[in-house]
Amino acid sequence: MGKNLTTRNEDYSKWYNELVIKADLAENSGVRGCMVIKPYGYAIWEKMQAELDRMFKETGHQNAYFPLFIPKSYFSKEASHVDGFAKECAVVTHYRLKNDENGNGIVVDPDAKLEEELIVRPTSETIIWDTYRKWVQSYRDLPLLINQWANVVRWEMRTRLFLRTAEFLWQEGHTAHATEKEAVEEAEQMMHVYADFVENHMAVPVVKGTKTESERFAGALETYCIEALMQDGKALQAGTSHFLGQNFAKAFDVKFATKEGKQEYVWATSWGVSTRLMGALIMTHSDDNGLVLPPKLAPDQVVIVPIYRNDEQLEAISEVAKALQKELRTKGIRVKYDARDTHKPGWKFNEYELKGVPVRIAIGPKDLEKGTVELARRDTLEKQFVAREDVVGVVEGLMTEIQENLYTKAIAHRAEHTTKVDSYDAFKQVLEDKGGFISAHWDGTTATEEQIKNETKATIRCIPLDDDNEAGSCMVTGKPSKRRVLFAKAY
Amino acid sequence: MGKNLTTRNEDYSKWYNELVIKADLAENSGVRGCMVIKPYGYAIWEKMQAELDRMFKETGHQNAYFPLFIPKSYFSKEASHVDGFAKECAVVTHYRLKNDENGNGIVVDPDAKLEEELIVRPTSETIIWDTYRKWVQSYRDLPLLINQWANVVRWEMRTRLFLRTAEFLWQEGHTAHATEKEAVEEAEQMMHVYADFVENHMAVPVVKGTKTESERFAGALETYCIEALMQDGKALQAGTSHFLGQNFAKAFDVKFATKEGKQEYVWATSWGVSTRLMGALIMTHSDDNGLVLPPKLAPDQVVIVPIYRNDEQLEAISEVAKALQKELRTKGIRVKYDARDTHKPGWKFNEYELKGVPVRIAIGPKDLEKGTVELARRDTLEKQFVAREDVVGVVEGLMTEIQENLYTKAIAHRAEHTTKVDSYDAFKQVLEDKGGFISAHWDGTTATEEQIKNETKATIRCIPLDDDNEAGSCMVTGKPSKRRVLFAKAY
Repeated sequence: MGKNLTTRNEDYSKWYNELVIKADLAENSGVRGCMVIKPYGYAIWEKMQAELDRMFKETGHQNAYFPLFIPKSYFSKEASHVDGFAKECAVVTHYRLKNDENGNGIVVDPDAKLEEELIVRPTSETIIWDTYRKWVQSYRDLPLLINQWANVVRWEMRTRLFLRTAEFLWQEGHTAHATEKEAVEEAEQMMHVYADFVENHMAVPVVKGTKTESERFAGALETYCIEALMQDGKALQAGTSHFLGQNFAKAFDVKFATKEGKQEYVWATSWGVSTRLMGALIMTHSDDNGLVLPPKLAPDQVVIVPIYRNDEQLEAISEVAKALQKELRTKGIRVKYDARDTHKPGWKFNEYELKGVPVRIAIGPKDLEKGTVELARRDTLEKQFVAREDVVGVVEGLMTEIQENLYTKAIAHRAEHTTKVDSYDAFKQVLEDKGGFISAHWDGTTATEEQIKNETKATIRCIPLDDDNEAGSCMVTGKPSKRRVLFAKAY
Repeated sequence: MGKNLTTRNEDYSKWYNELVIKADLAENSGVRGCMVIKPYGYAIWEKMQAELDRMFKETGHQNAYFPLFIPKSYFSKEASHVDGFAKECAVVTHYRLKNDENGNGIVVDPDAKLEEELIVRPTSETIIWDTYRKWVQSYRDLPLLINQWANVVRWEMRTRLFLRTAEFLWQEGHTAHATEKEAVEEAEQMMHVYADFVENHMAVPVVKGTKTESERFAGALETYCIEALMQDGKALQAGTSHFLGQNFAKAFDVKFATKEGKQEYVWATSWGVSTRLMGALIMTHSDDNGLVLPPKLAPDQVVIVPIYRNDEQLEAISEVAKALQKELRTKGIRVKYDARDTHKPGWKFNEYELKGVPVRIAIGPKDLEKGTVELARRDTLEKQFVAREDVVGVVEGLMTEIQENLYTKAIAHRAEHTTKVDSYDAFKQVLEDKGGFISAHWDGTTATEEQIKNETKATIRCIPLDDDNEAGSCMVTGKPSKRRVLFAKAY
């Protein structure tokens, strides 16, 4: 009956890997570094997509679709971008296979070599800005507010399901503006949209901020990010939004005529979140019994399990269960009634706990007699008996309560794991003792940032937006610091 | 003011190509054979996706996601499949680029050659059945009813926007069943689901049928299809559903334990529709003024255009327009109010005609005086003045009426272009005179089918499911024929 799940204390990393498999979220495929997202995992991703897509449209964006392949030469056009993205990638060199003349099955046809190699997109700035050149002539054509849902490929050597895979799913927004101000506002807006989604739907609190120069997106003038803290005290970058200045417009010659008839380069942003969010969701809320899902993203918010010894009992229970299912659905609640006779109730309890269904309702013969049901919350594992006529009201309340409870718990965990330090020794000690976010003064140089990274593996996650602007001196060099920044070891 | 659109009579093919560009649906990219789907085209595709996805889920299917890449060896496992799919395809041979030592920019790193080449999926049967082996042990694990929304790549030499592109978007369903009967029923069901969608949402009538052996999907025992007829008398295959027997289960060793404890191979289906449907939609309804969209798939079902000479007039008109927009939206109608001052009303009329918006409402100062609006239907180009208080009712009625009218017109066109012939001479004559579907007797051999194809370019589109089973003799060989089949030249 046990879950045979490694506990978080035993081995957090192993716990994560096992959980992803056992909760039926994803698995490794026969292709190195590429995952299969299983139906249950994909259903959660679909809920995320739907809500994000709604938010993007509400802020004026439209979807479009650009090619999977990017000619190699496109990457060379934006100098900093090429180093960041065009190195570890999947390269298409041929367009045909043929039967081997020596009977070795199918082989690459050497006569079908491409004149120019194609890169499977690691991100689409280059192909999109090559397209925008044709779309933008005048200020009337601006802004372009476009998003794409797509798969991308980055040839990662060490992969982990959802967190780091060679192929992953994401959305990438690419916008074009007439003014710098408008582009900066767009990049900031999308950071706020991401934070809103991650906090209010995933129930994962985030810190909003900007990246240091060395952590910026390749080609960006400013990278805005949202950073979340996992249960093991490591940070996870949950989303980024980049102000790209005129770099891509210049690289791809995208100019527009202003109202006054002058030719100017267009201002750009890009922003994205990916299936990595699944990793953040899992690692923030789940426990040693398996996945814990916030109600807003749970494919099934409630599961009803009948407990019976014979067909007669099942029939009577099913009548109540189906009526209840119907009533809950009327309230917009997603309810599954699992009356399979191939599995025992205990197996089902275990299964739905592993899969993080927020509320489980069990109905047995005694419940019928007493006019009650047994109701279990996944987040607290608390059980209670509820009178049949009160169930709908109680469940409706729990949808809100569980969502809030998960967020509150995550906030509390983050507060416990956020430490202000004023010396490098204290910094190292906190990192070793409990990890988490460490707020410290830094002299603003890449050299010091590198030194800290090399010595402690901690990186600057962000320069927080809403922290007080307290000045001080760098914990390493003692040089002046304008403000504290947030360090952590990170995924 | 003109659309500068080639007419269908002048050059149907050119008309199509121009229309796709001018209506802002899609365009060619810098990557050979790969298209950019522009926001307006993508918005229509999203409507298609949403409805299809709803239908798939209603019939018990779940979405999942499988890798973009397929190891070359997977294709060799199913003998007939390899010839059909693993030839003209994008082959990934390397996983890294590097800076050239001789200063030639970035080049493929010869040290980063893959041990086994990866094929960019042209269709996913092989990678999915390799996965299903792990998912299926017992009859309890069946059926698997899974769908994937994805991009696929087939290296086409001659490409046309939406109709034939190297990369295209599609959905592919892949199901696994315990019995042959269940798998056949699934394949048939999905053909009916596709027909329902194409007829009732796209307003495109289809013939349901099965493919001849030579036209079947590589690896299928039976291919069910839906065939539509375009305005130029050419057919277009709008969707296919395949009964794959146990071919892939045997190739990938997918067995299950029956209730009785026997080991048996699993039965399979696969089914798909793609962005090709956009081509069918465009070519069925559109006219020399541009795109014509059925209301159910139109991103904007109604556009309101103000006609004014000064700000005062605009203000008064906007008040009426916005109130109207609000009322229509309450009825679930998608309404755009285009008050841009950067374009003249005539330009806007032209634009929305090109883009196929079903209903256009114009409001000018005289309308305000008279309490009317001018309402124009895109399908018939008819205009009428409607009293302000009647507009909502009239527009609501038009949503249904236009949808039905487009379908009725397409049915009538198909009836006019479906001919029964009993001799090969008559067959050739009809093909030359007006094309369309030709119902004729055929002796059932691939040889005769090939001969007809070589001599006339017409292929057997399908063996219709619901035709009467009238016997006869083959129009070419005179040999006995059990039933008529449907020929046409096709896209």
